[in-house]
Amino acid sequence: HIVDQLGKWHLRSSAMQGLKVLVNAGPTLEDIDPVRYIGNRSSGKMGFSVAEAAALAGAEVCLIAGPVHLPTPLGVRRIDIRSATELLQCMLSEAPHADIVIASAAVADFRVREIAKQKIKRGPDGIHLDLVPNPDVLAEVAKVQPRPFLVGFAAETENVLTYARLKLDKKNIDLIAANDVARPGCGFDANENALTLISRDQQWHFAQAGKSELAGQLITQVAALYRGRS
Amino acid sequence: HIVDQLGKWHLRSSAMQGLKVLVNAGPTLEDIDPVRYIGNRSSGKMGFSVAEAAALAGAEVCLIAGPVHLPTPLGVRRIDIRSATELLQCMLSEAPHADIVIASAAVADFRVREIAKQKIKRGPDGIHLDLVPNPDVLAEVAKVQPRPFLVGFAAETENVLTYARLKLDKKNIDLIAANDVARPGCGFDANENALTLISRDQQWHFAQAGKSELAGQLITQVAALYRGRS
Repeated sequence: HIVDQLGKWHLRSSAMQGLKVLVNAGPTLEDIDPVRYIGNRSSGKMGFSVAEAAALAGAEVCLIAGPVHLPTPLGVRRIDIRSATELLQCMLSEAPHADIVIASAAVADFRVREIAKQKIKRGPDGIHLDLVPNPDVLAEVAKVQPRPFLVGFAAETENVLTYARLKLDKKNIDLIAANDVARPGCGFDANENALTLISRDQQWHFAQAGKSELAGQLITQVAALYRGRS
Repeated sequence: HIVDQLGKWHLRSSAMQGLKVLVNAGPTLEDIDPVRYIGNRSSGKMGFSVAEAAALAGAEVCLIAGPVHLPTPLGVRRIDIRSATELLQCMLSEAPHADIVIASAAVADFRVREIAKQKIKRGPDGIHLDLVPNPDVLAEVAKVQPRPFLVGFAAETENVLTYARLKLDKKNIDLIAANDVARPGCGFDANENALTLISRDQQWHFAQAGKSELAGQLITQVAALYRGRS
């Protein structure tokens, strides 16, 4: 792990020197009962790479992480959460201190209406799960004052850029990084990814690469846009 | 990993010499759409320890594993599966060749009626998930001819021994290892566990210990009961 980190030392820059960056990563899990939950396929790799790249670029980084099996990047302060509700609380308390928020977590859109206190027993019949919408974490963070510079992620399986642009407007954020998780070798579980970074009037494409390399390119671009914003 | 395995070399025995043992471990995940799934908290640690202990006791071991982050024990043949349906297919093809089946996987009791082909979009309203019962893997394996000696697991949060005895009868198996996953420091995610092994007319309690040690004790007892069965 240490050797792995030292190997990235050449990626150091001062692009984010003096900035406080809040990153979230990984899935959120929504419990059904004490043993079952609804999860999603986010491995957290992209978000952890982004947190690491921001730290290597000189930022003071706080990483809020869902349940993943990944080591904390060197120099990064990490807070672990489980559900979307916990993530929201944590984001609302950290975001006012951040210059930039990069939200890569795959937040569960729905949770069960009520978590069962004991394990639901199997029977001959099916069961119905009543799911209610979770709060939109990024849209809530966009209301925080002072409002940080906000970068979202959109992981889609179809109409990727269209959905990403809709998300940019609806959540009132500054940038969105869109990726097609249905593309072979990219996205969930994979070590590589390809991204399109979208602002209100421009877009930048980052070709398929390792998540660490891609995170470095993304951080450089985000820093330039943050520094150059009017 | 290798050092870890060599450290267990003193646990070798010949208790299962010449036997073929089929173990399953970990959760099964039931997809809702391309990104979301229903999972459970099984880490697979207990089942992987059981597979390792059986190998150290001289058995030829096949381990069918749900999605977990664990290395394959030395000398064990591993097959990875995702859903309960995949697990059942795999168990039915492997079980006829096994002398003993030890089923520790936390098989999902329910799956969604139909997996959505594209990511379900969030909206202002909730959604309803229609869950249908999965096949009872162990009960199906109990119908295989020649029928192997069958050991199940029962992870419960209440009335542990009562539910375990019911499971023993209903599934028509030889032994069941019951553990209380609500007990602090035990069960899911934990490195320790405590078990009660139950047969039709006897029971043996194994006090709280590391999962490797506990697995060794369990394998010794299972081997004795298998060799001594009438």
